[in-house]
Amino acid sequence: MPTFVAPGIAVLESEETVLFDALEARFREIAAALGGRTVAGPPLLPVEDLARLDFFRNFPHLALPVATLPDGAREELARGETAVPSPGHALVPTGCCLPTATCYGLLLTLRDSGIDTPQVVTSIGRCFRNEDHYDGLRRLRSFHMREVLYVGSRDGVVDHLTRSTELVLDLADRLGIKVRREPATDPFYLGDGARSLFNELDPVKFEFVADDGTAIASVNRHRNFFGERLGIRFEGEPAYSGCLAFGVERWVHALLQVHGDPQRALGAIHESAA
Amino acid sequence: MPTFVAPGIAVLESEETVLFDALEARFREIAAALGGRTVAGPPLLPVEDLARLDFFRNFPHLALPVATLPDGAREELARGETAVPSPGHALVPTGCCLPTATCYGLLLTLRDSGIDTPQVVTSIGRCFRNEDHYDGLRRLRSFHMREVLYVGSRDGVVDHLTRSTELVLDLADRLGIKVRREPATDPFYLGDGARSLFNELDPVKFEFVADDGTAIASVNRHRNFFGERLGIRFEGEPAYSGCLAFGVERWVHALLQVHGDPQRALGAIHESAA
Repeated sequence: MPTFVAPGIAVLESEETVLFDALEARFREIAAALGGRTVAGPPLLPVEDLARLDFFRNFPHLALPVATLPDGAREELARGETAVPSPGHALVPTGCCLPTATCYGLLLTLRDSGIDTPQVVTSIGRCFRNEDHYDGLRRLRSFHMREVLYVGSRDGVVDHLTRSTELVLDLADRLGIKVRREPATDPFYLGDGARSLFNELDPVKFEFVADDGTAIASVNRHRNFFGERLGIRFEGEPAYSGCLAFGVERWVHALLQVHGDPQRALGAIHESAA
Repeated sequence: MPTFVAPGIAVLESEETVLFDALEARFREIAAALGGRTVAGPPLLPVEDLARLDFFRNFPHLALPVATLPDGAREELARGETAVPSPGHALVPTGCCLPTATCYGLLLTLRDSGIDTPQVVTSIGRCFRNEDHYDGLRRLRSFHMREVLYVGSRDGVVDHLTRSTELVLDLADRLGIKVRREPATDPFYLGDGARSLFNELDPVKFEFVADDGTAIASVNRHRNFFGERLGIRFEGEPAYSGCLAFGVERWVHALLQVHGDPQRALGAIHESAA
């Protein structure tokens, strides 16, 4: 069982870590089947880049800025006058936030570029969410998100997400996890009421939801939003993009729900090998 | 070549990611040879736990507290009055900091426990450093640290670090990386002048330094400091501990320095297979 050093901050013990790694191997196979080039995305995102993506307007409650201690606090601590930074000292922003999703950082690496062939990029990253409550491996303050991002044409996005959907449903089926595909109730990139309504009519995000209501993966259409905002052009026009996302710890959770114990869950992953 | 989304914040492109993964496989072999149980450590560390470890007294300049935005800032942002959090609003501490090393989080999982057999635990984690300057993959704001932590007896620590040293020197040799073993000039857990002098007489930290001065791995003796502070007891007494640490991106850097290009570097890793 995982231990928690603070609410929502888990340490996976060996049995769960083995499941995590085995699932990741399956996700990487899917990423390869989708033509993904593996990179290691950035662990922090600059505030000004997030602003360019309307991040703070849409998700001000999720933002987790990283700070340093001001000189006064450092001196007090070094002198041993206090063991923890005293609240009287304001934190100094570093200009970076923790990522809430893996694809932002991948998209930033493509900014201000013109591409002639579609790009498919995959990475796993730690993501962080400031939530009201946390719930085991289902809802963590920090979790791993494996993404497979497509950047190119409008039709290419549709193909990528159609194929992604098939591959996710097939993997879940082989692992014995029953999932239903549902339009997301917390759309990926839509903040206000009007836009949420729009999402119901023309969903941009579908989730793959396990029996207990845990969304373990999603496919997301970004339209050409990131292409416009980041100056990514495909054949001369703002590029369209879309991504497949796996919440890795949530798959560990779902697998344990279905199979009861880690040994049987691991057996199911091994049997699922293509 | 890696790209940088901000100073010290790298994205590894596919060729470096392949090297990273191949090196990690070698480090995991070493961890297994040392009897390490693989876990996934915590991504954030509670401030009060770090205080218990004298972290803020010794390293107040390295601390990277994670914050949220206050209500006032969230409202301004949601209304679109400003695109970035305005500096007039003080950040709200979450009570957690980013880790500067992987072993802190592993030690926290053992706190207030009595163990009868030595524990060897291994994990890879993102570590974060607030530095004055950054330098390619040699000196990053965030990098991966694979650690193999031993907790048990005083003699057991000596054995663990002796064996670790042999394994690191052997791996470096097989990879063609010339390293020298040196007492660290930035001792792992010693803050003031008196204790640094003590380190010169009886080093607690040795680094493995490549030709260009990059420390790519280290072995660290903690004496029974963590055992005392965290209430970890081995056979009834405060446990001794020590760790082996690999700076993964620094090995990528060192390998590229020696072999010139990623293809040849990858070949060297494959040839190094035991």
